[in-house]
Amino acid sequence: MQNLGSYLSRVHEMHPLIHNITNYVTVHDVANVEIAAGASPVMTDGALDDVRDMARLVSGLNINIGTPRQSYEEVCMAALNSAAETGAVIVLDPVGAGATAYRSELSKKLLETGKLTAVKGNISEIGALFGGQGNTQGVDADLAESVHEENIDEVAKKLQAYAAQYNLIIVATGAIDLIVDAKQAYAVYNGTPMQSEITGAGCMLSGILTSYLAANKDDMLAAALAAVCMFGIAGERAEQLMLEYGRGNASFSNYLIDEVYLMDAERLDDNADFEQR
Amino acid sequence: MQNLGSYLSRVHEMHPLIHNITNYVTVHDVANVEIAAGASPVMTDGALDDVRDMARLVSGLNINIGTPRQSYEEVCMAALNSAAETGAVIVLDPVGAGATAYRSELSKKLLETGKLTAVKGNISEIGALFGGQGNTQGVDADLAESVHEENIDEVAKKLQAYAAQYNLIIVATGAIDLIVDAKQAYAVYNGTPMQSEITGAGCMLSGILTSYLAANKDDMLAAALAAVCMFGIAGERAEQLMLEYGRGNASFSNYLIDEVYLMDAERLDDNADFEQR
Amino acid sequence: MQNLGSYLSRVHEMHPLIHNITNYVTVHDVANVEIAAGASPVMTDGALDDVRDMARLVSGLNINIGTPRQSYEEVCMAALNSAAETGAVIVLDPVGAGATAYRSELSKKLLETGKLTAVKGNISEIGALFGGQGNTQGVDADLAESVHEENIDEVAKKLQAYAAQYNLIIVATGAIDLIVDAKQAYAVYNGTPMQSEITGAGCMLSGILTSYLAANKDDMLAAALAAVCMFGIAGERAEQLMLEYGRGNASFSNYLIDEVYLMDAERLDDNADFEQR
Repeated sequence: MQNLGSYLSRVHEMHPLIHNITNYVTVHDVANVEIAAGASPVMTDGALDDVRDMARLVSGLNINIGTPRQSYEEVCMAALNSAAETGAVIVLDPVGAGATAYRSELSKKLLETGKLTAVKGNISEIGALFGGQGNTQGVDADLAESVHEENIDEVAKKLQAYAAQYNLIIVATGAIDLIVDAKQAYAVYNGTPMQSEITGAGCMLSGILTSYLAANKDDMLAAALAAVCMFGIAGERAEQLMLEYGRGNASFSNYLIDEVYLMDAERLDDNADFEQR
Repeated sequence: MQNLGSYLSRVHEMHPLIHNITNYVTVHDVANVEIAAGASPVMTDGALDDVRDMARLVSGLNINIGTPRQSYEEVCMAALNSAAETGAVIVLDPVGAGATAYRSELSKKLLETGKLTAVKGNISEIGALFGGQGNTQGVDADLAESVHEENIDEVAKKLQAYAAQYNLIIVATGAIDLIVDAKQAYAVYNGTPMQSEITGAGCMLSGILTSYLAANKDDMLAAALAAVCMFGIAGERAEQLMLEYGRGNASFSNYLIDEVYLMDAERLDDNADFEQR
Repeated sequence: MQNLGSYLSRVHEMHPLIHNITNYVTVHDVANVEIAAGASPVMTDGALDDVRDMARLVSGLNINIGTPRQSYEEVCMAALNSAAETGAVIVLDPVGAGATAYRSELSKKLLETGKLTAVKGNISEIGALFGGQGNTQGVDADLAESVHEENIDEVAKKLQAYAAQYNLIIVATGAIDLIVDAKQAYAVYNGTPMQSEITGAGCMLSGILTSYLAANKDDMLAAALAAVCMFGIAGERAEQLMLEYGRGNASFSNYLIDEVYLMDAERLDDNADFEQR
């Protein structure tokens, strides 16, 4: 693995075009944070012909099911198939999987296509997505709790088994973030609880992750690690600014995107806090 | 009635989950301001099964008809029925009632379910919603003008009659805000005209109102009063910051949410400016 | 032509009501920037009856096809016909024309109604919209490149021919912006590359343009020129603030709207940088 900064640099050099099918709550922040990260976002999720054509033009597809519509499955599948044809990376953020049957089932259908490059969610969404067949809630009981120092290796092993089964990368977020594929597992300690005091931090990370994977297809696990560390560092810096200026969560949200914009390879390497498990 | 601050504290203690069916213009601010107020927002208004299931999980439902879609009535009714089954509070913000027939009629249908806990709108929307049968515009002529010191008691009495008829709380916003139920009426003097120089202040207040009602079901009129005073105080403070820093309406919008985030019980009680009418 | 500042003043005096059918990514910024510019925005693009009625109430209609839905053509046509009946100005922003066939065709259909007052896009969108019949990409080869000092008069002449054919104003944005009708052409040098480091600058300009045209129907080309200069100056000032405070693109986006809010006629006239071509 190279320095993490090199993965950041490649996003800024390549400016990958990322097609986002994402919720309408945080879509503006996803667009701005992808630009801040060096990528170029495009959003379209309504007219099928437009979705199909757009997904053929991009290097990455980011599917986030935060505000599903009636026709969402058809739209997601059309984009997914177009993107898969051209070899674009495809990321799923199964927002709210486990909370409603609709979200659990839609996520599973997208997973079962076998075409996902990565899945990113909080640990309970990940549990609902991969675990619990024959379980109404769809939540893997072992993954229902948060990740902490005592259970981290056990959780990582379980995620690696899922990653191997579906041949993809899993990013499970929480106080400690886990990034795994079939062979390797990393724990990331960057970030701040303030990131859950705003709407959209998870959605932004999915957009960044898609951008980093798209620009680093030769070493995607390290690129995912770089994305998670980078966003966590941006959060830490944004929190410092918020406290320094005596501001609240709306200002934090802006500072967070600002800090992604201001991030460079050196800052990332100096502040990344992770370990292989 | 206890101190208003106690109603704020209960939102922060309970973290009520609020389902928002709201317009796509200001949805991001609604999410962030509910978090700032101590609640936990979720948005879904597209896929019917998802809407129905989600509305069963929440403590409050906030329906804002700002950007209606073809299927909006069906979606709103599904959420409303789910939420009513579990005893969640239900708030309607009839955005644009009186401006188009569609909005007036949709609002009235939601009102006529008899399941609303509260309605919040500006005085002309409130007039269009409750008044004017057989009147094309649907606007109650007596409510068509703004509330001022001379007509406040007359308007309050009229609103109380509507509140009694439908057994709900009415929050009518303007230079002076009125909060009434069948038995009591309060006028609130907090706030600033800057709140109408941004998009979304009204939508944010509806989200906050839903959060406060959900966390204070034993004394909802006082909780509504606390919500309106709190948001008005946040506006006053945000305006001070905007002027101090020489900024405009976008910064004001961020400061406004920040100040909701920074608000505590003591600040609310020290600055609340209201009187019983 | 009067001073540009007078066109700004008339927006602030008239507070024109603007109906926006715009993408869900940047809609919040469009609303806030129209308020900042002195106009009054309303958004509705879902329920046909509501769209039809709302478009009858406004002074301007802003159609931006950034995130089209299945029923978008029907919705746009309904609004366009309502607005045209009352003589409201109608602006089209053909976002992504040339990128997908769907967008190119939808844009052309809206253009062919003959009811547009103005079209605003980047130079490649303008090329795709007006040029290239029988060309799959739909891009006018001569307009596929950016506008620079060497080709500016040639491009302006071509745009003027299109403007004459459809009897409308064309605003083509880039490092240099061109504003033309059949008879006159202006080049604007205000603005900063930071405006393409955020999502929504183009969408905001369309909203501002609609507002300025609606308030200045007796001299629309000059009003369009004033709108473009004004927004460019706001961008320049926002960039200075961003650099002074060491912030990134999210703060820039807020400063940009702030600076539109803070703009006055004198500042506009002192800083406008344009020439007739």
